[in-house]
Amino acid sequence: MARQVRLTDYPDGQPARSFWAFFNDDLPPLGDNEIKLRIDWVSVDPGMSGWITNKPSYMPPVKLGAVMRAFGVGEVVESRSERFQLGDWVTGFLGLQTEAVVSHKAVRKIDTTSKPPQLFLSGLGMTGYTAYFGMMDIGFPQENDTVVVSAASGAVGGIAAQLAKQAGARVIGIAGGPVKCAYLTYELGLDAAIDYKAGNVGEALNAAAPSGIDLYFDNVGGEILDAVLDRMNYRGRIVVCGSISQYADFSAARGPANYMRVVTHSLKMQGFTMRDYMHRVPEALEVLAKGYADGSLKFREHILEGLETFPDAYEMLFDGRNHGKLLMDLRGDH
Amino acid sequence: MARQVRLTDYPDGQPARSFWAFFNDDLPPLGDNEIKLRIDWVSVDPGMSGWITNKPSYMPPVKLGAVMRAFGVGEVVESRSERFQLGDWVTGFLGLQTEAVVSHKAVRKIDTTSKPPQLFLSGLGMTGYTAYFGMMDIGFPQENDTVVVSAASGAVGGIAAQLAKQAGARVIGIAGGPVKCAYLTYELGLDAAIDYKAGNVGEALNAAAPSGIDLYFDNVGGEILDAVLDRMNYRGRIVVCGSISQYADFSAARGPANYMRVVTHSLKMQGFTMRDYMHRVPEALEVLAKGYADGSLKFREHILEGLETFPDAYEMLFDGRNHGKLLMDLRGDH
Repeated sequence: MARQVRLTDYPDGQPARSFWAFFNDDLPPLGDNEIKLRIDWVSVDPGMSGWITNKPSYMPPVKLGAVMRAFGVGEVVESRSERFQLGDWVTGFLGLQTEAVVSHKAVRKIDTTSKPPQLFLSGLGMTGYTAYFGMMDIGFPQENDTVVVSAASGAVGGIAAQLAKQAGARVIGIAGGPVKCAYLTYELGLDAAIDYKAGNVGEALNAAAPSGIDLYFDNVGGEILDAVLDRMNYRGRIVVCGSISQYADFSAARGPANYMRVVTHSLKMQGFTMRDYMHRVPEALEVLAKGYADGSLKFREHILEGLETFPDAYEMLFDGRNHGKLLMDLRGDH
Repeated sequence: MARQVRLTDYPDGQPARSFWAFFNDDLPPLGDNEIKLRIDWVSVDPGMSGWITNKPSYMPPVKLGAVMRAFGVGEVVESRSERFQLGDWVTGFLGLQTEAVVSHKAVRKIDTTSKPPQLFLSGLGMTGYTAYFGMMDIGFPQENDTVVVSAASGAVGGIAAQLAKQAGARVIGIAGGPVKCAYLTYELGLDAAIDYKAGNVGEALNAAAPSGIDLYFDNVGGEILDAVLDRMNYRGRIVVCGSISQYADFSAARGPANYMRVVTHSLKMQGFTMRDYMHRVPEALEVLAKGYADGSLKFREHILEGLETFPDAYEMLFDGRNHGKLLMDLRGDH
């Protein structure tokens, strides 16, 4: 018997507690090449707001009445596939549920011998890959560059900022509130942190980046983008990160007001999603796993316990109460 | 005796007839390595509005009381330089004046044997180079791409659109009014023209580009950028052209409203100025001169006669009355 979260209506991009229904469902018997999983961890991701918007996008929307789409990790508890044995751990789109029967093609094996399995939903999963390719491939930080990361204490921003720091850049993080800012400088070792709730971001940038900004990893758009753009150096790069929808409603994430500076300073703004980089995941995984193993990269997780917490977890995507990668621990639901 | 246009005040980016004063000035005798020029043609350029804004930019502002900065072409009528002989033609920043004494380092020789000299201020000058590098190096049109060019009947846009067409793309031009639109399809051979004054640009783009847009050469920003952006295909490129200030006041040239699409469609927006490409001018000149010679590239010029027309010419940079590269013919002033 699987406990499940199903979508009852399309909330038009707004967080909405009433659009979720909880069900108990008998799972079907296994067909050929199928496996049954006990799902221990589920990822709550910014992409979810896109998946429950009823219009075509890079993935089709979740159907009404269907189990909500979600990344998860689980252990194989029954197998009719030659690829998987009992006790194997896998990740993939397992859905917001405690158990699942899936095709062996729908999942990928993960090596949990020296790593907690939920790491494959945060720093060693899409979150880490997004930070890696956005910062290292598109942003391409150079030694002594001044790099600014917004939502820098967030799941993607935190890893992106650390990667820039490792590349030898001077890194300034922007976050909301003194606790998150202290985390940026004391725990992640960034060179400066700016609390956007505490005062004028432009003036704070003048103080923290007196010779201008070479690279901006943008997770928010809007007024913070304007303030950074006005201080971008010649040939600066702005990485428009795929996780932007996590931190603000879509309408607030407008483009820059001072478009002329894109011309006068030969700036490049580039957006991306992980779709562009799926073929290069092993490269990211190697760097991130090494950083995790030697302690040079920190992956902060924000864990909620139990499937019933999902409506609250989903709201956190919009109001910023979480601090780190949002994960749901389902081990108590079995 | 040189007739000159001098700047009397900084107009703060607004067109202003009263900020210009006409003078007659005796030229100094030639020093070593100096030449005296009879200036036949002067270019009226969008960059001028930046040059008379009193703040640091990629070039220092014109000093109050000084001869207005302008590109020009002229013939050497006196020389104390070994590099130039009487009868040589040169181009450079000659100023808004009928004659000039300049250092031989300040000008570049041009070959006018088979080309009218003013061409080095339009299609074979900065205008052509800007179109060439923006479209071919940053935009990089591919066969069967759908390309949109705004201000497509303008000096830069017209050349950029023709270059995309030659690369095998399907090219849609946006311009203001039926005359300019007819020019785009009938004279330049573009696949479609959209009159932004005649109706909804978004709907017109739906009709003209039913499978979306791969490359946008942006000369205007603002609402037309929004309409194009909403129809950009995955991995589309937006070239933010250095001539954007020609077609709108700076404040209207805001960035895109729908910033999220930069992420969801992995779009790249890149600005540039000719400063990035000065070392590659010979490459552009070769392509443009060949296109001019074989008739495959058309350079439209809008010619005003006499130095006294400058205040009117300068206003045209803002109100769009000109159609093609704005040039002043000074041959009647000598």
